[in-house]
Amino acid sequence: MHSILEGISQPTLLLDCKTAKANLNNMNQKNSAAGIRFRPHFKTHQSAQIGEWFRERGISAITVSSVDMAEYFAAAGWQDILIAFSLNVRQMDRIRKLAQEIHLEVLVEDPISVEVLAAAAPAAFDVWIKIDAGAHRTGVEWQQAEHVLNLARSIEQRKNLRFRGLLTHSGNTYHVDSAAAVVSAFRDGVDHLYWLRDQLTGSFGSIEVSVGDTPGCSLCEDLSGIDELRPGNFLFYDAQQLLIGSCRPEQIAVAAACPVVAVHPERNEVVLYGGAIHLSKDWVDLKEGQSFGLAALPQENRWGLPIEGAIIRSLSQEHGIVRFNKGIPSAIKPGGLLFILPAHSCLTVQELKKYLTLEGEVIHTMNG
Amino acid sequence: MHSILEGISQPTLLLDCKTAKANLNNMNQKNSAAGIRFRPHFKTHQSAQIGEWFRERGISAITVSSVDMAEYFAAAGWQDILIAFSLNVRQMDRIRKLAQEIHLEVLVEDPISVEVLAAAAPAAFDVWIKIDAGAHRTGVEWQQAEHVLNLARSIEQRKNLRFRGLLTHSGNTYHVDSAAAVVSAFRDGVDHLYWLRDQLTGSFGSIEVSVGDTPGCSLCEDLSGIDELRPGNFLFYDAQQLLIGSCRPEQIAVAAACPVVAVHPERNEVVLYGGAIHLSKDWVDLKEGQSFGLAALPQENRWGLPIEGAIIRSLSQEHGIVRFNKGIPSAIKPGGLLFILPAHSCLTVQELKKYLTLEGEVIHTMNG
Repeated sequence: MHSILEGISQPTLLLDCKTAKANLNNMNQKNSAAGIRFRPHFKTHQSAQIGEWFRERGISAITVSSVDMAEYFAAAGWQDILIAFSLNVRQMDRIRKLAQEIHLEVLVEDPISVEVLAAAAPAAFDVWIKIDAGAHRTGVEWQQAEHVLNLARSIEQRKNLRFRGLLTHSGNTYHVDSAAAVVSAFRDGVDHLYWLRDQLTGSFGSIEVSVGDTPGCSLCEDLSGIDELRPGNFLFYDAQQLLIGSCRPEQIAVAAACPVVAVHPERNEVVLYGGAIHLSKDWVDLKEGQSFGLAALPQENRWGLPIEGAIIRSLSQEHGIVRFNKGIPSAIKPGGLLFILPAHSCLTVQELKKYLTLEGEVIHTMNG
Repeated sequence: MHSILEGISQPTLLLDCKTAKANLNNMNQKNSAAGIRFRPHFKTHQSAQIGEWFRERGISAITVSSVDMAEYFAAAGWQDILIAFSLNVRQMDRIRKLAQEIHLEVLVEDPISVEVLAAAAPAAFDVWIKIDAGAHRTGVEWQQAEHVLNLARSIEQRKNLRFRGLLTHSGNTYHVDSAAAVVSAFRDGVDHLYWLRDQLTGSFGSIEVSVGDTPGCSLCEDLSGIDELRPGNFLFYDAQQLLIGSCRPEQIAVAAACPVVAVHPERNEVVLYGGAIHLSKDWVDLKEGQSFGLAALPQENRWGLPIEGAIIRSLSQEHGIVRFNKGIPSAIKPGGLLFILPAHSCLTVQELKKYLTLEGEVIHTMNG
């Protein structure tokens, strides 16, 4: 049987569509069962064609992380888009234009952003207040109820703005080391939003709660009371998610196939054509050391499970160095392929720009 | 006066051409003075237009790190190209084709690669043996004189191959912490190549020695006896080079202008539109902690010196978090700009894909 692996000559992102669609079905069913609106984050796949998988399952509202991405998916027919990124007032011309074409939702965390949005009338916006529920990246600290109340009031006073509710990204679920700790961090974040909502109740009509991080959404069984979920990475998962416990190894749906260009048995290392510009330089911390992904052997038309005791110890611009603590597997030869399961699949998709499916089809992203 | 900074709405790579050309003149003059062939690495700038700066200074031979890059620069008129990357036999069709169009030089470190190149006749190649002089990335360990001798003989026996000499990249100069240690690591690498050349002398005609890493080429005054130098990063320098001591802060010729989207005085942090997909996730280790570049304030039409006590403490896909250990400078406001001097300029160029010069001109790379 001819394998698609034979035709690969440079670092190539393989996509197992069956696994990705199973991941999508799982998350979609989980949301449906809990009666939650599913607004998946499209920054992970960045592909109009993959977006259709979501549309076929009845999903019509999406999340993106940039104005570029909002424009790309609007052009692909998406009419309900949340830009889940602190308002960049330097891009207001494009944001205003887009809001006149589709239903656009945005985040604010300060009064200046509200002014800028109000000044963009007649363009209309649904506005969420971004809350820092513990991740310390962006947003108003959840304890600052008065600040949030003032912000919500100033939104409600503007004719072209509608206050939708409180939104957070519990990115702190990425920094814990057990499934129980993920669930606990995720539930704490949700509880902080509930507490804050209670402080505002009476002053406003409906106040929705929107959350979304793949570890929390994957591991937390009790999603009651949440209005909207926005995970993205769950579609492909990756080494970070595996180590957190969000997925099993066989749920990882993308891997970079990299040509082996040198084998060094004297130091148990293999050199790959596959570096920072292909994989990104994100990493995981394994007991063997820092590793820029997980190595796996080819297996028929796909990749196998991660090789135990192997780390991607170094990435330069085009090279990757894989060290095998238990000896180099005999199947690895110069001219062969080794797979890298990405440390962070969103970034590897960004670098490699397109997918090759296991069926041999090329799927493009907004970047190539 | 109208500043080009006013028109910047998203992460943008600013290029100070005057500084970059001064860096180029320095390195070119250093090579000329020592009578060394200068074969600059074009993986740093990846731009046909910037390549012309080199051509205007009489440089006609270049180094690249991929077949893609070799094809791009061949199409831009470069006729003498070294692919300084372990031979990827899966790309032999393209390598063979290119070698029939231009003078192509390649690296080998094992007998299989020699066989593959020989089989590509009538395409002809100048072949270097890649030596690991201490960096432990790729190449034959420098102590393995017999292996190198056998490899050189097998090259010489092929009609379409010419043995050029010994080539190394002293990447270990990136992992030391003083200028003296860089010079010492660089000279040790060169001495190892000399020793190895002495073992081969008598068996072959001329055996050249090619080295190239920006720290060594910048800091080492004694370049005697070297035939060819291949640095690349010296054109722009970056935070890693600054910390190594290869350059002064004012020699850094590129910086990413990033919109400020949130300011958090309560934790001395600022959130930028500028993340891993703009800067890459390479880093430097400062005494304040891991930092994904160095922060600088806008200064008229350019950026200022790095802000002391500031670190880029975290990069997610699109966000960067800057922490100011000495308080947020009062000039920083949402809607303003902050500059990031790249941790590793080659990777930031790769991510941002094009340059905006201080004069307002857009310069493209092979990626965009």
